[in-house]
Amino acid sequence: MAEIGPNTRLRVSPFYEATLSEGVTAFSPYNSMLMPVSYGNPSAEYDRLINGVSLWDVGVERQVELNGPDAARLAQVLCARDISTCSVNQGKYVPMCDHRGVLINDPIVLKISDDCYWLSIADNNVMLWARAIAQERNLRVDIHEPDVSPLAVQGPKAEDVLVSMFGEQIRDIKFFWFIDAEIDGIPLKIARSGYSKQGGFELYLMDGSRGTDLWNKVREAGAPWNIGPGNPNPAERIESGLLSYGGDTDDQSNPFEVRLDNYVDIDLDNDVVGIQALRAVKERGPVRHQLGIKIEGHANTPGHHRWYDIYADGESIGSMTNGIWSPRLKQFIGFALVERRYKAGDTVTVNKEGISVSGTLCELPFI
Amino acid sequence: MAEIGPNTRLRVSPFYEATLSEGVTAFSPYNSMLMPVSYGNPSAEYDRLINGVSLWDVGVERQVELNGPDAARLAQVLCARDISTCSVNQGKYVPMCDHRGVLINDPIVLKISDDCYWLSIADNNVMLWARAIAQERNLRVDIHEPDVSPLAVQGPKAEDVLVSMFGEQIRDIKFFWFIDAEIDGIPLKIARSGYSKQGGFELYLMDGSRGTDLWNKVREAGAPWNIGPGNPNPAERIESGLLSYGGDTDDQSNPFEVRLDNYVDIDLDNDVVGIQALRAVKERGPVRHQLGIKIEGHANTPGHHRWYDIYADGESIGSMTNGIWSPRLKQFIGFALVERRYKAGDTVTVNKEGISVSGTLCELPFI
Repeated sequence: MAEIGPNTRLRVSPFYEATLSEGVTAFSPYNSMLMPVSYGNPSAEYDRLINGVSLWDVGVERQVELNGPDAARLAQVLCARDISTCSVNQGKYVPMCDHRGVLINDPIVLKISDDCYWLSIADNNVMLWARAIAQERNLRVDIHEPDVSPLAVQGPKAEDVLVSMFGEQIRDIKFFWFIDAEIDGIPLKIARSGYSKQGGFELYLMDGSRGTDLWNKVREAGAPWNIGPGNPNPAERIESGLLSYGGDTDDQSNPFEVRLDNYVDIDLDNDVVGIQALRAVKERGPVRHQLGIKIEGHANTPGHHRWYDIYADGESIGSMTNGIWSPRLKQFIGFALVERRYKAGDTVTVNKEGISVSGTLCELPFI
Repeated sequence: MAEIGPNTRLRVSPFYEATLSEGVTAFSPYNSMLMPVSYGNPSAEYDRLINGVSLWDVGVERQVELNGPDAARLAQVLCARDISTCSVNQGKYVPMCDHRGVLINDPIVLKISDDCYWLSIADNNVMLWARAIAQERNLRVDIHEPDVSPLAVQGPKAEDVLVSMFGEQIRDIKFFWFIDAEIDGIPLKIARSGYSKQGGFELYLMDGSRGTDLWNKVREAGAPWNIGPGNPNPAERIESGLLSYGGDTDDQSNPFEVRLDNYVDIDLDNDVVGIQALRAVKERGPVRHQLGIKIEGHANTPGHHRWYDIYADGESIGSMTNGIWSPRLKQFIGFALVERRYKAGDTVTVNKEGISVSGTLCELPFI
């Protein structure tokens, strides 16, 4: 492995210094920033998320703020899900598609006020995209990146930690809703959300100069529950069936092939980008669909960095997009993006860097 | 420094295996790919570029292909420079701006045929941008990323190396023009271009399965001139005054403030994105402008990863965007993006991670 460090095209998050103090050992770029991806002890990091509480620098989940009289209109135009029913202080997970109906992001849309929305984005330049659409349509909306950086507190003990800091109001936050909060003068929004299925919260830090302060406060408050550093966990998220935009999708992927059917509202107005293409896909059905894959008798192997071909009946039928050893299933598992006629239960072969291994397709999630 | 490796959101170039064999020691992400940025011997890498010949994996310079009856129209709409005079087999360096006239890329546009253009891009998702503009305007053009990855051969001996491989025709290639070529069945376009001022070429590999073959062939051909691995060199490019989009520009930078005046044609039609905003900037003059800065008596220090404030008359007047030790000037130099009333010759102070150092503004390039 080679080294990486920040440069003027690769920003750090407000939590960067804290993650260095915690002994971060590896980064991956995400939205032109450094995202911690290891602290050197994968099994402890996994256990903490499953059984305790884990603290993640996810400042790379940048916010694209839409602000102005046409902000609500633009937010809807950009999203293939009906967000007209979204309340202030509520978030919704939405597929964002291009004119072909191909996924270009899967943000959480947070409604800050009637004239202000945040798109909390996955790894792609949504600000560029939103500005193009807004300007081409002469919408009255300012689009910029506010000083907002999420810190995730994830795991079954996350709620107890936050209650100890912010009181019982934390327990009343509904899934994907958020409240305003403050601690020691640090302004926050706290949402019940996060890239795991273990429960937890995201603290949207609204003052980038206070990243280390916030990290240390959560660290101290979480000590009784043995909180420790972690990051979006590749094993847990695959076990839980969580999609990685850009990791499990390609330049042809529409929401229907990656299990986002329930988040697409095809009756939206035609000015929603991609909605006509999505109607056509829904009618004829997607070409591929995403299933799980369990690899037979495969030893514990590290994650891979390219899609592997999946074969059945002597021909390529799709790809294993990401795969990893599952500590809970004690098996190598992954996501399969395959032709729709192949189903859960079918036996396939994966060509994994020249080595053929057998696998079985299955429904998602794994756990 | 922490580790980095490829993953499914961070692709490798066709030259990746070759760079591993050469002993690459550090990567930086660029267009969601790994770009080699060090082979562990900075002074040898610099000397090779200045005095000999250097081989760079710049596969991260992705091509955005515009193909179809409206390809020429779209190419012009996206570029603030008149490209109507561009011939087939010619390239032009162009500022690409958003509707505010703010730089979003500075690609080389290569005219492949009357109906086909490649945008050889810097670090930003131009494909997303181009698709938004094309679709919103109903242009008949297909936009995709072809299987094309540049390999740069840079330095005063680069021409001799390529002549030894492809013959005397290489000497006739004019600056930014390109020819079709082939070696051992490897399809290429060869352009006289590259991100240095030491002369050289970029070999656009058109078959991603042949990256190692091409690397090795150039390596063998270059042996008499002591060719070796390198990468876009931060010291040489700053000495030479070459702009780094995203490194020396921010979300407010227009072409006029970063010395690209000569590449903007303000008389272009109003349907060119940003042209009206650029006319307004030209009329009133940009708020900031880019100069060089020489730091007084400053020891050899490593590159920095954030912009440093520049002060004069007791107040902040702008930023040092990138800076580095110049082996030829034997001085620490950098780029200054400062208010326009400050000029070459003015003495300023730079706040470099809490330490104040004196500097003098100067014209660019340094050499």
